[in-house]
Amino acid sequence: MSNSYLCSLKNQAMRVGDKHYHTVWMEGSRVYMIDQNLLPFRFIIYTAATFGDTVQAIRDMKVRGAGAIGAAGGFAMAQAFLDLHTVTDPEKLAGAREVIRDARPTAADLSAATSRVYKKGIQGGKVISPAAAVAEAQAIALENIEEARKIGEYGSSLFGPETRMLTHCNAGWLGFVDYGSALSPVYHAKSQGKKVFVYVDETRPRNQGARLTAWELTNEGIPHAIIADNASAMMMASGKVDLVITGADRIAANGDAANKIGTLEKAIAARYYNIPFYVAAPRSTFDPLCEDGSRIHIEYRDEDEVKYMTGPDSGGEIRSIRVANPGSDAINPAFDVTPASLITGIITSGGIIKPAANDIKKFLNKLKPICQNRDAPGPRLTRT
Amino acid sequence: MSNSYLCSLKNQAMRVGDKHYHTVWMEGSRVYMIDQNLLPFRFIIYTAATFGDTVQAIRDMKVRGAGAIGAAGGFAMAQAFLDLHTVTDPEKLAGAREVIRDARPTAADLSAATSRVYKKGIQGGKVISPAAAVAEAQAIALENIEEARKIGEYGSSLFGPETRMLTHCNAGWLGFVDYGSALSPVYHAKSQGKKVFVYVDETRPRNQGARLTAWELTNEGIPHAIIADNASAMMMASGKVDLVITGADRIAANGDAANKIGTLEKAIAARYYNIPFYVAAPRSTFDPLCEDGSRIHIEYRDEDEVKYMTGPDSGGEIRSIRVANPGSDAINPAFDVTPASLITGIITSGGIIKPAANDIKKFLNKLKPICQNRDAPGPRLTRT
Repeated sequence: MSNSYLCSLKNQAMRVGDKHYHTVWMEGSRVYMIDQNLLPFRFIIYTAATFGDTVQAIRDMKVRGAGAIGAAGGFAMAQAFLDLHTVTDPEKLAGAREVIRDARPTAADLSAATSRVYKKGIQGGKVISPAAAVAEAQAIALENIEEARKIGEYGSSLFGPETRMLTHCNAGWLGFVDYGSALSPVYHAKSQGKKVFVYVDETRPRNQGARLTAWELTNEGIPHAIIADNASAMMMASGKVDLVITGADRIAANGDAANKIGTLEKAIAARYYNIPFYVAAPRSTFDPLCEDGSRIHIEYRDEDEVKYMTGPDSGGEIRSIRVANPGSDAINPAFDVTPASLITGIITSGGIIKPAANDIKKFLNKLKPICQNRDAPGPRLTRT
Repeated sequence: MSNSYLCSLKNQAMRVGDKHYHTVWMEGSRVYMIDQNLLPFRFIIYTAATFGDTVQAIRDMKVRGAGAIGAAGGFAMAQAFLDLHTVTDPEKLAGAREVIRDARPTAADLSAATSRVYKKGIQGGKVISPAAAVAEAQAIALENIEEARKIGEYGSSLFGPETRMLTHCNAGWLGFVDYGSALSPVYHAKSQGKKVFVYVDETRPRNQGARLTAWELTNEGIPHAIIADNASAMMMASGKVDLVITGADRIAANGDAANKIGTLEKAIAARYYNIPFYVAAPRSTFDPLCEDGSRIHIEYRDEDEVKYMTGPDSGGEIRSIRVANPGSDAINPAFDVTPASLITGIITSGGIIKPAANDIKKFLNKLKPICQNRDAPGPRLTRT
């Protein structure tokens, strides 16, 4: 990875083994990403040589998580500018923008990042600067990193010398370009010498907790245990959970937060046991035009996600098996909405705020560009 | 199956395809059972020719669920009486009794049934009547059936003309000899012409909901859908759940109820949304010597239940695959305790009672032997 776009990366940047990685990055005209479909069983960097390769990788969920998808989308748009066939043709570039957006139509970050890059490279209907488009894509990735890092700094204030946290799904660095949202405070707390233990909900049906969060925590050396989603309330009832932090997919103007299915259940249980429940999110997750949670459209995904599971057998071969009665239907909502009333606070890059319309508005208004010094080199090692 | 021990079985007895089955039964000196380890992917009747076969089947969980285990234990004890090598030797029979009890040491029903059968066949230290022992074992199975049937009758009063119920784990007929506890009211409501839709929690980590409850409901023609455990609260929040009924593994004197892990979380969510939450249980589930839920010992099972899943691949071959990060530990509590304060009522064979010490005591005291007419034939078909 070139250092040319690195902002102010600290040594905290995330590790795999003894190396540091981003989930997705661009060098020259190529985009590189950790193939998250293969984690935690295989660690492979996928190389997207062209705009089309990157779009397909977004579709295939090689890259996932709002922040990482946004960065990948920005890079894909930049690739389109560098593509010899489209570089002089604004119409083709507008078409490419649509193709990228359609790869994951509900991902707000994807659409926003793609537009930002597109606008930098085109003016008055003419392609003015592919280089400016590439620089903007790199800037988007950097902003994502810096936001996540600040979320970690602010969120770590919630951790005492010894804290047992519960999290749901993966809102770690794999969902961003680096650091993550819900897990960034864990990593920062550890760097401050605090002891943290994380209960990791396995997060059925796609097991992002058991697969991705557990893998991240293992690589960062954070003590943790995977639990069946069903065990969360019992862990809380037993006095074993001090704090819950999850990510969010969309936060409405009033503080209602959509996140991975099951988050609502954890929030209700946390309230029942008077355990603080926090949501951690970057700016792009807030949707000020969405009045409240009832306006958030919930995606229902293929029932086969519930009825089949995939993983390696004892010989290491990846297999898909049936885990439910063949004659039965399944219903598979991908997200739920946690009402603001169940959320203790939202950890943002501007501090921990209340899940309330005024506080959210204030945060969104005061936020300045995060990464002022885009060309400063950083001490980052990568294996590409 | 012989009709000689059939009590007052109605046509409601449970179906597989177009035939009626019990989970476990005895004919001559043989014990037959549906092999529940193979469900829902293979339907096979296992034949235990000897006492030792039945004990091993209990150990291997071919038969599971408190009621079914109790009946199987009674049959195993009866088989020991019929065994040529032990029939004249009271000491060997006492040893056999211990072996059966040790097959699942925490199952209260197993111990109780085994003792009842043992005491019927032996008097004053001498074997008096193997036939009486066999009759007692059959009586235990019948009582279990009749209790479950009555739970269904009382519980069905909770169902309106159209009811959407949520259940957790399997407390259906597979966990009993017939009918079940939490599902028995569903079957009875259907027989009354009421429309019932059941949301079936998959019930990680062992997926008894997705595998067994879904299989039962399919065979009984009850409309249902499997959901990830994480989706329960969202279904409740969406106004899609009218009623929750689960089984129980042990009910303390004050009404606190231990049940499959995750039950507590459903009860908390149901309370949050003001949805009635009922527990259905036979007499044997009540433990009047256990003061409250804090005295119930919770079993932690092997973490591999969380980290691996088993099922058929596309070719039908049963395979075990890894579904979690290899470097991570898992914590696997098998049960949790729902406090009486979250339980709307307990559906028993004596009516629906409050989860309160006095009401429970009254129910346990007034309970009479259920099956008075043990020799009446019933119109039961089985494929053995």
